[in-house]
Amino acid sequence: MMEKVDGARMRAMKARVFDITTGINIALMNEDEAHENDIFTSDRVLIKKGQKHATAYVDLSSTMVRRGEIGLFADAAAALGVKRDDVLEVAQSKHPVSIEFIKKKMDGWALDDKEISTVIKELMENRLTEAELASFITSLYIRGLTTEETVSLTKAIVASGETLDLGSAGPVVDKHCTGGVAGNRTTMILVPIVAAAGLYIPKTSSRAITSAAGTADTMEVLAKVDLALPEMREVVMKTHGCIAWGGAMNLAAADDKLIRIRHSMRLDPKGVMVASVLAKKKSVGAEYVVIDVPVGRGAKIEGMDRANDLAREFIIIGAKLGMKCEVLVTYGRDPVGEGIGPALECRDVLRVLQGGGPTDLVEKSCKLAGAVLELSGKVEPGRGYDVAWGLLKNGTAYAKMKEIIEAQGGNPRVNEDDLPIGQYRHEVHATSDGRVHLVDNRMVNRIARAAGAPKAKGAGIMLHVESGDKVKKGQLLYEVVAESETKLSEAVDLLEALAPIELEKLILGKMGERGVFEWKPEM
Amino acid sequence: MMEKVDGARMRAMKARVFDITTGINIALMNEDEAHENDIFTSDRVLIKKGQKHATAYVDLSSTMVRRGEIGLFADAAAALGVKRDDVLEVAQSKHPVSIEFIKKKMDGWALDDKEISTVIKELMENRLTEAELASFITSLYIRGLTTEETVSLTKAIVASGETLDLGSAGPVVDKHCTGGVAGNRTTMILVPIVAAAGLYIPKTSSRAITSAAGTADTMEVLAKVDLALPEMREVVMKTHGCIAWGGAMNLAAADDKLIRIRHSMRLDPKGVMVASVLAKKKSVGAEYVVIDVPVGRGAKIEGMDRANDLAREFIIIGAKLGMKCEVLVTYGRDPVGEGIGPALECRDVLRVLQGGGPTDLVEKSCKLAGAVLELSGKVEPGRGYDVAWGLLKNGTAYAKMKEIIEAQGGNPRVNEDDLPIGQYRHEVHATSDGRVHLVDNRMVNRIARAAGAPKAKGAGIMLHVESGDKVKKGQLLYEVVAESETKLSEAVDLLEALAPIELEKLILGKMGERGVFEWKPEM
Repeated sequence: MMEKVDGARMRAMKARVFDITTGINIALMNEDEAHENDIFTSDRVLIKKGQKHATAYVDLSSTMVRRGEIGLFADAAAALGVKRDDVLEVAQSKHPVSIEFIKKKMDGWALDDKEISTVIKELMENRLTEAELASFITSLYIRGLTTEETVSLTKAIVASGETLDLGSAGPVVDKHCTGGVAGNRTTMILVPIVAAAGLYIPKTSSRAITSAAGTADTMEVLAKVDLALPEMREVVMKTHGCIAWGGAMNLAAADDKLIRIRHSMRLDPKGVMVASVLAKKKSVGAEYVVIDVPVGRGAKIEGMDRANDLAREFIIIGAKLGMKCEVLVTYGRDPVGEGIGPALECRDVLRVLQGGGPTDLVEKSCKLAGAVLELSGKVEPGRGYDVAWGLLKNGTAYAKMKEIIEAQGGNPRVNEDDLPIGQYRHEVHATSDGRVHLVDNRMVNRIARAAGAPKAKGAGIMLHVESGDKVKKGQLLYEVVAESETKLSEAVDLLEALAPIELEKLILGKMGERGVFEWKPEM
Repeated sequence: MMEKVDGARMRAMKARVFDITTGINIALMNEDEAHENDIFTSDRVLIKKGQKHATAYVDLSSTMVRRGEIGLFADAAAALGVKRDDVLEVAQSKHPVSIEFIKKKMDGWALDDKEISTVIKELMENRLTEAELASFITSLYIRGLTTEETVSLTKAIVASGETLDLGSAGPVVDKHCTGGVAGNRTTMILVPIVAAAGLYIPKTSSRAITSAAGTADTMEVLAKVDLALPEMREVVMKTHGCIAWGGAMNLAAADDKLIRIRHSMRLDPKGVMVASVLAKKKSVGAEYVVIDVPVGRGAKIEGMDRANDLAREFIIIGAKLGMKCEVLVTYGRDPVGEGIGPALECRDVLRVLQGGGPTDLVEKSCKLAGAVLELSGKVEPGRGYDVAWGLLKNGTAYAKMKEIIEAQGGNPRVNEDDLPIGQYRHEVHATSDGRVHLVDNRMVNRIARAAGAPKAKGAGIMLHVESGDKVKKGQLLYEVVAESETKLSEAVDLLEALAPIELEKLILGKMGERGVFEWKPEM
């Protein structure tokens, strides 16, 4: 007697496993058998092994699986812990109810808490196709989210994963940056400052998607960043802070799936972005959150209007979730620091913690850390920056960073000479006199990536000038750094086309009657 | 020296072929090699073999392909004609420019002719992901299409495939039905009538997606329907008409890809639906087109307002494409004819052509055929129905149908006793006295499909009552017909839940504050 799951009759099938990674769950079925059961490619089946369920999309084959067999590709096999010849129960999957809610949103209606949590739940069960999810995000983008919808979405994302509980320890603070600015490694300076001041800051960071390095990539030069949740808790309880890779934990799990679609189309509905950020903060139990919104060409947020909107949204939604938020809109047109790429950025960070380093990185980190100290009530209003600067300059922050590095399994005595910086260099010199008008974040990131960053930790760019500098013909502007000759030459190939440093003011962009804003042409 | 295609450097890779059908092009790459080249799952690669190009999505494996090898799944291998050990040139695929246009539409701007044709071109090259295409259709659904956009889309769909050219033969007419009505096989009666009257009607029809039979499924009981374009041309030049399966030809090719997404989300933006229909008509060279829009619960179009909108759109867009269109809004609440399912519908059709058959099928077919005759100028206004009825009743249409069946490789002497109608029957009787309030198209289709239709040609439903009939307790309402006992019992299992014939008037639906219109609960 077959059990019924989800209203469908289950049948027993024998597992085969294929070492093919697709990013989604795929089940390979015998073509004749599938067609007899009205199952076609891109239909969904529900697969059960013991207590575990997963939904998978169907691919078909006449030869690779026999009747009665079901082939799981690597993602699905891992999700269910399936080995060859395991007996699985399989049923045709019902239409996910979310489709009705996605359609409702498309038609302009607001979704309630239950409806949004259902969409996120079915998303987590892999019951929605990429197409359905894209329709959802597109509808949210066009129709917008109400405050209530954003709150519901944030709660649903929090509920989709685990949460960090520090018990009675506190106050718990956090910080976030909306991104896009190359070399912007303030987290690695801010965390030790506020931890040294006695606050708890369980910081999770991301790896690079399109940039030369994410904070997780850079911290990884100094210590282990893929901490499991209990490990992170231990580090934070011991040192008051950590800098871990968010992707290694199951915090705000739905966010990874949402980002996948947002990234492919470069859509970023305001409400989804806010929910995504605040869900991560809520998941670690943050009570006070400072958000850095860099604004400027090349940053994630390019105009002040959008920054203002976003700032209000963070504050309103944060309050509804019991988090006090403060948003600092920062200058995001140029890179921060001198090094771009994991090890080169590490060098800037170590220099700052040791009392030197690039001034812009020192100033920005102390301002953000000061804001955290004031917001949490640890320091009286107006005194935050000074206290932060003091903790940095008297070495307390550096001592704290060593504790954190050690707690995360790194070598606390690491010095800049130990950093694995690439030996292959290419210098770029000014071809005329002029004044540096722009160091383009996007171009800098692309060249650093071509040179091997973030995978090659020692690759990237060293900037020797910044916006406003007067330069003479022949003066060194920047160096490209790589770990191999091949990678160096690939990056150098890109230079001609990209020109990351502009010496003259250019037209920033134009909008013609076609309605598409054109920045300078990209490759 | 590697050639550059599409701006990317190509490298030579050795092909492996995997018998896995997914519905899209998949290339399996060695995981380490891919990551070293910054290629991840769901990235796209461009693959070249000789003069043929295709874009494929990347799956990864450590064991199934070695470095330097690329594994093509069945769809991509077929598209490129690749065999094991063929040498292919492979490059990372550039971001499709369509993404910019999809985003522009999302932001509320109208797209111009060039932009729409680019999206359709990249769609045809498989360069858009399901997610990107879903975003496009969702944006069209929410933002709507201007008349100009619909015209551009129609032209782009026509240009995506081949076209039928009948030379100086004419006038060329066509007919379309928006669908949803079970048993509505008017095409198989209308085509011989208008062909007998001397018009040319190169009719392409579809197979069932969710219904018990499409016209192509039903015609297939009598003749071959998967004609190639030159075969169709030959049949039409010889007999003036044909009833072929559109899917076998490469007419309006982009439409199949668009339908895939529209079907998954059940989205049907008006402009896309109109473009889809008219592109098929334009592709066969139609000058006069009659469109049947059945309206009523269970039909594709449920309300008169939407039917009116759609009718206007067909007429305006048709005119801009040089086609004179006429729309007949028809009663779509109940099935047409007695049989539901390929062979059972064929029986109704043969009976009608032989002078008998269900009255509703006779009347509807003659009205539509009359409209075609009048619209084309073949018959003076007001006389169309009479002429059509005359051609049917004097046997001319039947003689023409025999010619068409023979030209399509079928047996023109087929009679209803030769039809392969299933031997397994289940009778359903009225459980009380009453009047038939509704025969539900959707429920009828679902039960017929459970009984095996359309794959099992002889399966389906025979209706013995229609709306308005007074029935007595115990009277035969309908029979379920199947080709096997298993299928019959599966269909009978569904009956309890679905009740396709309602004897009392019910609430039709309700909309609550959730904003979702609820028809009667579906399984």
